[in-house]
Amino acid sequence: MNTLTDALHIPDTQSERDERHLAIQRVGVKDVRYPLNLRVAGAVQSTAALWNLDVALPAEKKGTHMSRFVAWLDAQSEPLDAAGLARQLDVMLDKLGATDGRIEARFSFFIRKKAPVSGLQSLLDYAGAFIAERKDGRTAIWAEVGVPVKSLCPCSKEISDYGAHNQRSLVTIRVELKDPVAGAIEWQELVRFAEESASSEIWPMLKRADEKWVTERAYENPKFVEDLVRDVALRLNADARIGHYRVDVENFESIHNHSAWARIER
Amino acid sequence: MNTLTDALHIPDTQSERDERHLAIQRVGVKDVRYPLNLRVAGAVQSTAALWNLDVALPAEKKGTHMSRFVAWLDAQSEPLDAAGLARQLDVMLDKLGATDGRIEARFSFFIRKKAPVSGLQSLLDYAGAFIAERKDGRTAIWAEVGVPVKSLCPCSKEISDYGAHNQRSLVTIRVELKDPVAGAIEWQELVRFAEESASSEIWPMLKRADEKWVTERAYENPKFVEDLVRDVALRLNADARIGHYRVDVENFESIHNHSAWARIER
Amino acid sequence: MNTLTDALHIPDTQSERDERHLAIQRVGVKDVRYPLNLRVAGAVQSTAALWNLDVALPAEKKGTHMSRFVAWLDAQSEPLDAAGLARQLDVMLDKLGATDGRIEARFSFFIRKKAPVSGLQSLLDYAGAFIAERKDGRTAIWAEVGVPVKSLCPCSKEISDYGAHNQRSLVTIRVELKDPVAGAIEWQELVRFAEESASSEIWPMLKRADEKWVTERAYENPKFVEDLVRDVALRLNADARIGHYRVDVENFESIHNHSAWARIER
Amino acid sequence: MNTLTDALHIPDTQSERDERHLAIQRVGVKDVRYPLNLRVAGAVQSTAALWNLDVALPAEKKGTHMSRFVAWLDAQSEPLDAAGLARQLDVMLDKLGATDGRIEARFSFFIRKKAPVSGLQSLLDYAGAFIAERKDGRTAIWAEVGVPVKSLCPCSKEISDYGAHNQRSLVTIRVELKDPVAGAIEWQELVRFAEESASSEIWPMLKRADEKWVTERAYENPKFVEDLVRDVALRLNADARIGHYRVDVENFESIHNHSAWARIER
Repeated sequence: MNTLTDALHIPDTQSERDERHLAIQRVGVKDVRYPLNLRVAGAVQSTAALWNLDVALPAEKKGTHMSRFVAWLDAQSEPLDAAGLARQLDVMLDKLGATDGRIEARFSFFIRKKAPVSGLQSLLDYAGAFIAERKDGRTAIWAEVGVPVKSLCPCSKEISDYGAHNQRSLVTIRVELKDPVAGAIEWQELVRFAEESASSEIWPMLKRADEKWVTERAYENPKFVEDLVRDVALRLNADARIGHYRVDVENFESIHNHSAWARIER
Repeated sequence: MNTLTDALHIPDTQSERDERHLAIQRVGVKDVRYPLNLRVAGAVQSTAALWNLDVALPAEKKGTHMSRFVAWLDAQSEPLDAAGLARQLDVMLDKLGATDGRIEARFSFFIRKKAPVSGLQSLLDYAGAFIAERKDGRTAIWAEVGVPVKSLCPCSKEISDYGAHNQRSLVTIRVELKDPVAGAIEWQELVRFAEESASSEIWPMLKRADEKWVTERAYENPKFVEDLVRDVALRLNADARIGHYRVDVENFESIHNHSAWARIER
Repeated sequence: MNTLTDALHIPDTQSERDERHLAIQRVGVKDVRYPLNLRVAGAVQSTAALWNLDVALPAEKKGTHMSRFVAWLDAQSEPLDAAGLARQLDVMLDKLGATDGRIEARFSFFIRKKAPVSGLQSLLDYAGAFIAERKDGRTAIWAEVGVPVKSLCPCSKEISDYGAHNQRSLVTIRVELKDPVAGAIEWQELVRFAEESASSEIWPMLKRADEKWVTERAYENPKFVEDLVRDVALRLNADARIGHYRVDVENFESIHNHSAWARIER
Repeated sequence: MNTLTDALHIPDTQSERDERHLAIQRVGVKDVRYPLNLRVAGAVQSTAALWNLDVALPAEKKGTHMSRFVAWLDAQSEPLDAAGLARQLDVMLDKLGATDGRIEARFSFFIRKKAPVSGLQSLLDYAGAFIAERKDGRTAIWAEVGVPVKSLCPCSKEISDYGAHNQRSLVTIRVELKDPVAGAIEWQELVRFAEESASSEIWPMLKRADEKWVTERAYENPKFVEDLVRDVALRLNADARIGHYRVDVENFESIHNHSAWARIER
């Protein structure tokens, strides 16, 4: 390209010197939809991810090179995992001539689940994200899952003569991997932290015998939003591979038009 | 403006003749946020609505006059009701020099509700819309409400030893007013068609005695998505002021990560 | 499953008789995320689609069988095309015991494009949808694309001493395929109807020489929203494989905080 | 309510002791739509805001009191300003028996603007937010605006024989008020930080003479996303009332299907 640009005598405005003496912490491309391959439960899933890519820009530099982010994206082909993400962050920073930067990819992935009684199989969809950040000489790699579950209100159960209000909840778990190479965590492991903490996990396809099981399981296992967020946090605390984390639980309350919500961060 | 434009010798490109022999059914502005005053339960509510305004453009005309839609919007000041909307559609069509056209405004509105046992009051929010359409010499005026309610599954109740899955549902009712002047319908009337058809209505603020009431009420009153949509339709069928209508019910299933959904149109 | 259900003596509430004498035009599942394979430009793309599946329910039937929609989804494995979609609609209706019904799948897909001067390649993302509907004994198959393009305002160019406002636009084309077997249309063909009608098509990765080309091309080729929607409609009119269609163009105006919008339907 | 609850012998499950030894940093209600009154340019605007309200919960407490958040909301009636927000945060924390907590309200507001040449007036909508946070004995009050503007690319202008790509941009400015009582900042002041930094500000209603002005103004005043974010930051640096801040600029690129984006934080 440089040859072509030179030949056309096209000035390179972005490479000029900036005189405002203001560094930019993050600059890049946002909401680029591009393919992503992911390894889930031993098999590769292909999907369309939403990518945010940015780098830090020193005070004296006028602009970054936006097209290089897309060139980096287009060069991705291997299924992305935590160790590969750490390596690819270095590749991206090198391409952009930057010391600090960040990759974020958001996507859906599927896990094949067996209904609890009928054993019938179907695919449940989860929200996933990979985040890699290099800042002040340190790289952090995060994995995130958004897991739909069922919550049933302990108060409603306790005070009512029959029934108890329940609803869909979304448990979002973001964990830092202490060691992306040796201490990787499978997507289905992250999902289980949430599903095992809920009043009940859920499935896309349930026959009547399964529906009975889920209904009764949730009734036997009531959880406030506070219980759910704490029970997930306890599980994360017990896993030595996890550094910092953030757990959000949102209950789409069936007795209100708003959510109950809780967060624990470490 | 014409004087000013003439003085500046600015050509009027939109008013030129078009040679493609293709009429455009609808052209205008979309997603304009502008204030709206609304009369709900006897009092005026002020809010920010999202407006879509468009007209039909004959084959020989090159373009419409986009700024006149905004001028029309800016001239609105009275609280909008069905009769006023019908009149204002004529004003807009006249301003645009069009025979056919459409106004759509989407907004939130509030109704003050008393919790069923404690009597405590709070404001529940509803989605509202007004649509006015003139086509082939006929004007139709529609009002729409989106009402959050609770649904409880009859199958889950029947087959389970205890409990029953339930969830938030959204009932969307769009009705054509046969006579916008004499046969107006209050927003709270439209809302009640939905709330009275649900397993239970819901409230923003509930004390424990109220929560017990809602829980037991829903358990005593199970409804499939099919029951809910039919029960709303029966109520609409019994109201002589209503012409065409469309009822959508969406249950945000608490045992799945997808919705159950049904529609009846007349 | 019937055997299992019988063995557990679980009552089948949905199969009971309904006494409200109200048919339901559409009932089913909404916003189910499930994998989709698609053939684009000769290669198979795997993605996560959002599915809406529903059937008509006669007045005497109390409910439909929600889990069978998911069972149908889980049985899909071949890359979906228009001819296969028509066949699969019959399979779904048969599974549900329904005469009328509808399938809608929404997804992203990619086309590899070469930048106009540098020739560098990158993947542009488009919104796609497949819709199949059987109603009153007739099956209709629709394909839809959402194509991002660039529009430049003829009025702004004409009246200004230099420059012209331009912006990203979204062209949404929905076409009915007269003959899904013999008269299939490739996704890239639908995309070109939009891209060739715009002030300029766009690319994810552009070098400076390309950016110059896109800028000048758009300036030489100004289009109102009315021009764009008409130019797409002219192209669709000229294609014998297309029956009914709907073209929407939305310009995310760079001089306003709202869109200019137009629609032609046939 | 306590009397009523006692009379009904309804157990208070949320007030029980928790044995998991895990504090919850934030728990409360999310996405509650409730009215908000706001003073903008000397007049009160009424709108529907989206509220998130939460408090910190100590390790030994099982749950918070969700209904009290809504009771607090329902007691709001005065137009909300920064000083009032600081006082109301104390009221909320007191009601909830909490030491730390957070209020966030998101809403639209309008400013009446005169078109640059014709002088015609119309209302431009902006996104606004108020955030109040008490943590570790310190209260922080933030105000945020989302301002739609126009950006024109300096590189495109420089390299092209005519024209330059431009697009709508969103500038989001979040500032901490050092002194919410004495050092309040008007909404229109925050808005001007963004509008004065852009290639051109924008208006809902423009006549041709205005459109010419905006087009030429933007062409004379090209800005990269990096320029825009820096120019806003320079203005914020010069205002002694502002403590920490965060500026995001997103350009909805008209030559791509993704955004260019930059952030400066202090």
